[in-house]
Amino acid sequence: MIGKELEVYLHEQIPASKLLGLGVKNCSQTNVELIAPLEPNINHKNTAFGGSLSVIAILAGWSLVYMRLNGIRNEIVIQESSMTYLKPANGSFTATSLYEESTDWSKFHRSFTKRGRGRIKVKSNVLCGGEIVATFQGTYVAFHKEFT
Amino acid sequence: MIGKELEVYLHEQIPASKLLGLGVKNCSQTNVELIAPLEPNINHKNTAFGGSLSVIAILAGWSLVYMRLNGIRNEIVIQESSMTYLKPANGSFTATSLYEESTDWSKFHRSFTKRGRGRIKVKSNVLCGGEIVATFQGTYVAFHKEFT
Repeated sequence: MIGKELEVYLHEQIPASKLLGLGVKNCSQTNVELIAPLEPNINHKNTAFGGSLSVIAILAGWSLVYMRLNGIRNEIVIQESSMTYLKPANGSFTATSLYEESTDWSKFHRSFTKRGRGRIKVKSNVLCGGEIVATFQGTYVAFHKEFT
Repeated sequence: MIGKELEVYLHEQIPASKLLGLGVKNCSQTNVELIAPLEPNINHKNTAFGGSLSVIAILAGWSLVYMRLNGIRNEIVIQESSMTYLKPANGSFTATSLYEESTDWSKFHRSFTKRGRGRIKVKSNVLCGGEIVATFQGTYVAFHKEFT
């Protein structure tokens, strides 16, 4: 799946992503980078609204789980999230989620395959102008549709 | 300030709130309740998108701080947030933030008045059909504009 396909999928399935102007800059099974313009996400201080930073970070993490399960019919939901807002974003911003080999990911894939359900913590960094403006961590649960 | 004024303010200052259809159901210095329709906030499971639940919860907490400082020129920013998603929201949903007298709020108001800056943790509950579907906690910092 290339970026454009993921973008179309997100816009169709989660219309808020389209309303807020979110696009897919990069996507692979190891790296997802989403991007959003400032304009629809601006706040009263002319910087990016914290809720919009939360949305892009949630979707970056979600998309990485989605990419990891490429081609397998599944449903992915978020269970918990936390975010730290470090500095204002004064322009368009991105959220990046990277896959790194770990026992947690191995366990996630094994559980998803054997029991039709996997849980994984994913981090995203939100960047603006080359600087990290917010950090995010979300716990996602993926359900294999053939098991449900 | 009545609900309609807060709604107009949010829609003007934070256009994402308008794009996602957020409205103000109740607002006072002790209680803020925001509401959003499912349609622009729907996801691939035909329930509310987690990012939208996050947005309404962040804004409910933000609005409560804003209402507490009614009439004082200020800027309020979010510093940290965490959220637990308990169950799907199958229809329109609300986020409620309640003020309760506490030493934290006293400290916040005292610090804001004396030092032009206060920090406060605020909780929001997101409800759908009378049930809590997500819980939220955010730390907000308010800056008195005359001190900055």
